[in-house]
Amino acid sequence: MSTSVETPFERVRIVGTGLLGTSIGLALSERGVSVSLSDTSPSALALAVDYGAGRPEAPGDAVDLVIVATPPDVTAGIVSRELSDHPEALVIDVASVKGGLREQLLEQGFDLSHYIGTHPMAGRERGGPTAARVDLFTGRPWIVCAGPDNSRADVQRLVNLVVTLGASPTEMSAEEHDRAVAIISHLPQVVSSVMAKQLLDAAGNHLDLAGQGVRDVTRIAGSDPALWRQILDHNAHQVAPLLKSVASDLATLSRALEQLEEAGAKRVVADALEAGARGVLRLPGKHGMSDRFALLVVVIDDRPGQLAALLTDIGELGVNLEDMRLEHSPGAAVGFVEIWVVPEAVSRLSDDLVQRGWRIAGKLS
Amino acid sequence: MSTSVETPFERVRIVGTGLLGTSIGLALSERGVSVSLSDTSPSALALAVDYGAGRPEAPGDAVDLVIVATPPDVTAGIVSRELSDHPEALVIDVASVKGGLREQLLEQGFDLSHYIGTHPMAGRERGGPTAARVDLFTGRPWIVCAGPDNSRADVQRLVNLVVTLGASPTEMSAEEHDRAVAIISHLPQVVSSVMAKQLLDAAGNHLDLAGQGVRDVTRIAGSDPALWRQILDHNAHQVAPLLKSVASDLATLSRALEQLEEAGAKRVVADALEAGARGVLRLPGKHGMSDRFALLVVVIDDRPGQLAALLTDIGELGVNLEDMRLEHSPGAAVGFVEIWVVPEAVSRLSDDLVQRGWRIAGKLS
Repeated sequence: MSTSVETPFERVRIVGTGLLGTSIGLALSERGVSVSLSDTSPSALALAVDYGAGRPEAPGDAVDLVIVATPPDVTAGIVSRELSDHPEALVIDVASVKGGLREQLLEQGFDLSHYIGTHPMAGRERGGPTAARVDLFTGRPWIVCAGPDNSRADVQRLVNLVVTLGASPTEMSAEEHDRAVAIISHLPQVVSSVMAKQLLDAAGNHLDLAGQGVRDVTRIAGSDPALWRQILDHNAHQVAPLLKSVASDLATLSRALEQLEEAGAKRVVADALEAGARGVLRLPGKHGMSDRFALLVVVIDDRPGQLAALLTDIGELGVNLEDMRLEHSPGAAVGFVEIWVVPEAVSRLSDDLVQRGWRIAGKLS
Repeated sequence: MSTSVETPFERVRIVGTGLLGTSIGLALSERGVSVSLSDTSPSALALAVDYGAGRPEAPGDAVDLVIVATPPDVTAGIVSRELSDHPEALVIDVASVKGGLREQLLEQGFDLSHYIGTHPMAGRERGGPTAARVDLFTGRPWIVCAGPDNSRADVQRLVNLVVTLGASPTEMSAEEHDRAVAIISHLPQVVSSVMAKQLLDAAGNHLDLAGQGVRDVTRIAGSDPALWRQILDHNAHQVAPLLKSVASDLATLSRALEQLEEAGAKRVVADALEAGARGVLRLPGKHGMSDRFALLVVVIDDRPGQLAALLTDIGELGVNLEDMRLEHSPGAAVGFVEIWVVPEAVSRLSDDLVQRGWRIAGKLS
């Protein structure tokens, strides 16, 4: 058995050539896997083939693994069909909600020993095969929701595949997955949408004053409403109580602001702001950037080659960039380059850059 | 009179050397204006002086313009004092809420012909003099709320000053200003804070799955709670009804998700998502980046000098970057550089970069 556990899948069938299906196809094809593609849209299929995600399906294709990457509403039906059509293959899906899907399949009397629900936590605001990227999954979590009927060997093969694609496999139950995405993905989506909805009533000259804050809060409200309708549909019971909690907090705040002079009202406002500041600190990763790295802000002129010259200088000084961001207001004569480096390097880097003629606009270490 | 209208202020006093006061001082000093600085904190004052924002105030300083850049709670008191102390000078403030301040000063019986409320729409998550930037206001709106008592000459001088600082002056009444910032700044802040507050109850392994969406929605929740408490305090009557509207929309959505099979429930969810997608499109500026520019995503290895080499190549190809963003997941072996260029340049740039050995992960034109 140990050999077969290590063997990657050799013949993979991907159903649905949108962003996820095409990206998986690209990554597998690059690694020499034979990939056949299927899509109800001939034009999407042709694009995915052109991109190099695989070849079109052919009758009698032998298949070790089926990956269902269709919109959530039709996923259960297609997984059922694929389980019937390919009884020897392992069938997985990549839909954003896992619990209901599993229940639907069980209700239909399917043997689920050859089915595993998964969810790669990768996406983009744009969809479709043309948004696909061979490295879409690099460094991203990929949830694997194995059930009691799955063999450990199948689960391990799948985990190996996920690692091959550059993603970070995490096993959890379908129910726990749905609770996790409700709070970290579905709730923020709805909150962003409802916030953005209020902008419909705002005066145009007021919107002209918009800064980065409102843009960030409402960015994901621009995601595909049809996709999100389906996702919320399938995870409604997890999302509803969270929405109720936000609604209740906002209603309480609204009442406090209406009657600020009443006892305790100012406390309600202060507590909510402080709780929010503590909450955002719990997010791992970039938000913790300032805990681990130091920031240097360098001014550059708005002409070709400036950024390259700066980065060449930093490279020559032997300092590795942990992260970098260019801030450039339209029409401005200068831009700001935010450079994150290890704290030990920031003083010397700053001094050396000044010596080379660069202007430092700010520092945080 | 026309000469004096064109004359910039020559002797400026800045009260409060936080982010805004210090940034204004830097910009004015750079333009040869004589700037005297005042702050209740000797260390903040010393830092601002070190930064080059001006010299410490001295008894008997002659002053044309006083800029009050203190926390909102004390602004009215300090404006009153400055109006008394400098009867020939124009006194302005830069606080985020304008209506209440004006009313407070009127109630105290002040002649407001020498006072103009203003609000530069620029800020950062970090505060204090060390976050100051000489170009903080470049390209940003700066609201000027003149009153009926102000002379047109004073207003024009102030508008000229704003232009000198690189900002874009917009005149509106204090009341309209407060309505505008309620929707585009204060409401998103509170929504972000309340969303981030929910993260306090989330499991740590669920938060590990957080992607860019929840990070963006909650980013401004990390802003200074003490400052925001004061801002909301002063604009409570404008913010409360907006919060109530968001709370009500979220409560309706929560009920719809609880009873999705009831008539009209799915429609409620779909309508909210679509309204949000339409709302976010009303924001001007960067959201329209993809209307005006083409995007190229280039893969780079995670080692020093890679980004510099890429940008050097782009510079040699004579293509100007409109914007750039490095996407790099912690622990990943590769990063993605998002490059925005004029649409005419993207095909050739893409071909040339491939020829020079770069890998293109995606394109949007």
